[in-house]
Amino acid sequence: MFITFEGIDGSGKSTQARMLWERLAADGRDVVLTREPGGAPGAEDIRKLLVEGDPGRWSAETEILLFTAARRDHLERTIRPALDRGAVVISDRFADSTRVYQGATRGDLRDTVDALHDLMIRVEPDITLILDTDPDAALARGLARKSGEDRFEDMGARFQHTLRKGFCALAQDHAERCILIDGDRPVQSVAADIARRVEAKL
Amino acid sequence: MFITFEGIDGSGKSTQARMLWERLAADGRDVVLTREPGGAPGAEDIRKLLVEGDPGRWSAETEILLFTAARRDHLERTIRPALDRGAVVISDRFADSTRVYQGATRGDLRDTVDALHDLMIRVEPDITLILDTDPDAALARGLARKSGEDRFEDMGARFQHTLRKGFCALAQDHAERCILIDGDRPVQSVAADIARRVEAKL
Ligand SMILES: Nc1ncnc2c1ncn2[C@@H]1O[C@H](COP(=O)(O)OP(=O)(O)OP(=O)(O)O)[C@@H](O)[C@H]1O
Ligand SMILES: Nc1ncnc2c1ncn2[C@@H]1O[C@H](COP(=O)(O)OP(=O)(O)OP(=O)(O)O)[C@@H](O)[C@H]1O
Ligand SMILES: [Mg+2]
Ligand SMILES: [Mg+2]
Repeated sequence: MFITFEGIDGSGKSTQARMLWERLAADGRDVVLTREPGGAPGAEDIRKLLVEGDPGRWSAETEILLFTAARRDHLERTIRPALDRGAVVISDRFADSTRVYQGATRGDLRDTVDALHDLMIRVEPDITLILDTDPDAALARGLARKSGEDRFEDMGARFQHTLRKGFCALAQDHAERCILIDGDRPVQSVAADIARRVEAKL
Repeated sequence: MFITFEGIDGSGKSTQARMLWERLAADGRDVVLTREPGGAPGAEDIRKLLVEGDPGRWSAETEILLFTAARRDHLERTIRPALDRGAVVISDRFADSTRVYQGATRGDLRDTVDALHDLMIRVEPDITLILDTDPDAALARGLARKSGEDRFEDMGARFQHTLRKGFCALAQDHAERCILIDGDRPVQSVAADIARRVEAKL
């Protein structure tokens, strides 16, 4: 069972991914928590290339190739071995992030993103939990954290509204695996909702 | 005019690329000498990821994605701007190296390599000079240098013989742009031969 968390910056993905992981682990399940970009030693090195340095350093096309390289490494070294031994894998972001972020910035590259995915990744999650959170609230949460490495966050509130639409469209296009979760509630309510939805599918 | 040098390890590519560059520059031409992997600051950083560390660090698939990301950066930042202003570009290796090296190690990935090229690179050289050099002589030349970073060279003489066949097959498949050059001659004879062939096309 491969579960991913998606949503705009500061929507609560990392918080909820960790809480779901704790809950499933407390039930005695073999469960692996991972994240993108990164999630394996090689992929983390590629992640560093992507997030550090001048924002104009990579073109959108090169960036997509680097994201795909990191994802391939993550898949081979972390996700697939865990799934093969029967573990539940929870990933904080996966291919949908590339689809939605690149779709919002360079809509003309949508077919390229899909073709690269079909060629080099292919795997889709069994469940994708999309945290649907008010962009202004999420942005305020994110700013409170000051991660310092997120270039996308710098693009501001309007961009986050565009992304939110992208994630909602994705939920419709992949309704068989996507579940929209209202992220504008207290952390514990969101977590209880997610646990209920996931346990129904396990 | 986009010219590439290809051939097995130690076949004389870097030596001849530099000599051709000097000759065309002496003629007063705007000519840019570059190399792969690398050839632009971002691409050089990707090159470092590729050549350093544990040889088993990357799968063939991840490696192909990283090579393609580096090539895309090289193309955008170095090759295309130079061609656009009318310069001659000489590259020490390009896409054919990926085709032949991956073809020799993972023949099952040939279609993937071609599909990635068609999706993200597309550009082909106008002239590809393939240095056809006896693998044992080339290996001895290479060992004399001791570059310390080349993982492919470690695979030995038999592998270089396989590569040589791959480059010869490539010359046939892309006869419209490939020229096989006998590399088993003194440096100056090889250089004179190459200059004659290139000047005929310029
Ligand atoms: N339901 C919630 N209500 C209020 N604050 C929350 C809620 N969920 C998370 N937060 C807080 O909002 C901030 C962002 O949450 P989190 O890091 O989980 O989001 P994220 O989606 O992973 O963000 P990013 O995209 O930047 O990784 C954190 O400080 C977190 O504690
Ligand atoms: N025609 C030649 N005869 C003898 N030695 C040569 C000749 N051409 C090059 N060499 C020497 O062989 C060595 C390898 O040459 P060079 O570095 O040009 O090869 P290369 O194809 O670029 O190798 P690599 O694939 O490792 O980059 C160098 O020491 C060079 O001086
Ligand atoms: Mg997060
Ligand atoms: Mg060389």
